[in-house]
Amino acid sequence: MNIFSATLLATSLTAGFASAQSIQSLKTPERPLVLQARGSFFVGGEIVEQSRVELGGRAPADRVTVNQMYVEYMIPEGAKKTPLVMVHGASLSGKSYDTTPDGRMGWFEYFVRQAHPVYVVDQVGRGRSGFNQAALNRAIAGETPREQSPKPYRFGDRNGVWTNFRFGPRLGQAFPDSRFPVEAANELAKQSIPDMSEMVPSPSPTHKALADLASDLGGAVLISHSQSGHFPMEAALLNAKGVQAIVALEPGRCRGADYSDEQIALLAKVPTLVMYGDYLSAPTGYTEQTWQDRYNDCATFVKRLSQAGGRAAILSTTELGVRGNSHMLMQDRNSLQLAEHVRSWLDKNVRGNEK
Amino acid sequence: MNIFSATLLATSLTAGFASAQSIQSLKTPERPLVLQARGSFFVGGEIVEQSRVELGGRAPADRVTVNQMYVEYMIPEGAKKTPLVMVHGASLSGKSYDTTPDGRMGWFEYFVRQAHPVYVVDQVGRGRSGFNQAALNRAIAGETPREQSPKPYRFGDRNGVWTNFRFGPRLGQAFPDSRFPVEAANELAKQSIPDMSEMVPSPSPTHKALADLASDLGGAVLISHSQSGHFPMEAALLNAKGVQAIVALEPGRCRGADYSDEQIALLAKVPTLVMYGDYLSAPTGYTEQTWQDRYNDCATFVKRLSQAGGRAAILSTTELGVRGNSHMLMQDRNSLQLAEHVRSWLDKNVRGNEK
Repeated sequence: MNIFSATLLATSLTAGFASAQSIQSLKTPERPLVLQARGSFFVGGEIVEQSRVELGGRAPADRVTVNQMYVEYMIPEGAKKTPLVMVHGASLSGKSYDTTPDGRMGWFEYFVRQAHPVYVVDQVGRGRSGFNQAALNRAIAGETPREQSPKPYRFGDRNGVWTNFRFGPRLGQAFPDSRFPVEAANELAKQSIPDMSEMVPSPSPTHKALADLASDLGGAVLISHSQSGHFPMEAALLNAKGVQAIVALEPGRCRGADYSDEQIALLAKVPTLVMYGDYLSAPTGYTEQTWQDRYNDCATFVKRLSQAGGRAAILSTTELGVRGNSHMLMQDRNSLQLAEHVRSWLDKNVRGNEK
Repeated sequence: MNIFSATLLATSLTAGFASAQSIQSLKTPERPLVLQARGSFFVGGEIVEQSRVELGGRAPADRVTVNQMYVEYMIPEGAKKTPLVMVHGASLSGKSYDTTPDGRMGWFEYFVRQAHPVYVVDQVGRGRSGFNQAALNRAIAGETPREQSPKPYRFGDRNGVWTNFRFGPRLGQAFPDSRFPVEAANELAKQSIPDMSEMVPSPSPTHKALADLASDLGGAVLISHSQSGHFPMEAALLNAKGVQAIVALEPGRCRGADYSDEQIALLAKVPTLVMYGDYLSAPTGYTEQTWQDRYNDCATFVKRLSQAGGRAAILSTTELGVRGNSHMLMQDRNSLQLAEHVRSWLDKNVRGNEK
């Protein structure tokens, strides 16, 4: 832990914030944030022609760009460590890594304050990256069978989030030592948006966009969460040049048994950290598969990397001596303690990361 | 014009940026940006129950939140002027106000550097605000007639953007004095995302969210663009308490003849600036209505405000002695010159805005 986490705990309300709960809860750090640069841009994208129907019926056939990846970034003033690229999970956006549901500093800003340039993306098909609406509009117009239409899907609060994200055994009831700020669960619900993954080509263009971004940055650590858990591995297999390390937070899968020995040999060159929270065996309320099953898949992956000579580790946060961490490691009350664990691992395992 | 626009013109490339065109073009200002606080949150939102079909078919009926408005913000260190809230137009997101397609500083950061706390939103139904997918999924499942389904729509490059945004007479051909960085038009195309307005209740919950945000901030200037042109007026009519001024950039409509005399009397208490670019009479390629028609609607509105004793103004940027400004005033090459015009107007017309 360092001064900033202490600063965060001794927060004050920003003047002018009044009645709305979510605004009132926004914390102002004691020290200003000094940035050399910040902004946003896109990686990738394809120019395609679409029909009037595909465009939604308001204008003639025309040209549009699809499958681009939105990136927002902050570069700290002064000496810099390795850039970090952060990718969110299903039915969420890059907002996952920003201000927490209860108004604390997110990992985006925290790591910038620790001298890392940080790039937060919206996956292709989500948030400000947009999605390709063409197949959806063809189905609505009856040009293709309804049954073939891609569908937007969402996690609900009861089964998609509360139990599946392991806040507690049922909606409104938290595990006694839960680290998620459950009083702000309704604020997390606002971060949940329709997931358009069924409209995204397979494999997701986000894989290549991440590889290209890491390469263009001259090297970066790829940090994934949940549904995007294996995206950094897929990115490294496309082009390992820029992928300096992988940090997978609560990955939905690591494809432990899927990769060939040749692929594992390549991935073993990339230092890899996999982190899970607590209560891995609790029923998810969403799928038969528990998070323990997902952990086991990743443990297989890590073991194969290690056997191939790689620097790879997997842990549950209970091994750090804390109980009750949820699926949302970057939003839990001890999120900065977990950030510090990642930071310390990066300092030990990423070449050139030391200050 | 001030030091920052000069700084922007004398840009340097950030070290580490390499092959991707969009990354290479990102400019690094000469002076660091010093923030007291930054982050993101949501305003509004409704908790609703949805069926398995409405949720996209992957999980049982559950509770979700819809119609919330995403807000990202930066608060400068030091003395502060009035907060600004920026709302984007159709088929776009809050990205409109960030880094320009050719990599220059956007209005979001520029106004923060001029001492304004700035809040950039994604309209309800767009970007990180998400949208309510229920009616779409009911139609795909055949529960409601296809014809009744809301549809996502997009602007195409030829008719939706190039001619309609008045870059030039046809795709790839710019007006000789065009101020839009047309060489980066493909980067603007990446900012274009499906517009889910047909899935948003009418009137848009964004109106109330803007009024609530302005009120919670203890007063703010609402800045709108294009399709959101009249949103600040609708917000003020719901609750004028926090709306200190309105700046409407290239509004799609001002509802000049629609408002009652009582409504005009209320709106006349809010200083209002309406700004349009050049080539207002050019064919849009998209609608019969030209931008001159839209200007005329707003001129009627401004005249009614003035007659009711309001401080209201409308101008085309040609009146500032510049030719060639497009629909994307905040992205044109002289975007900071236009920002300075807005800033100077705010200093003269908003109580408490002077430093």
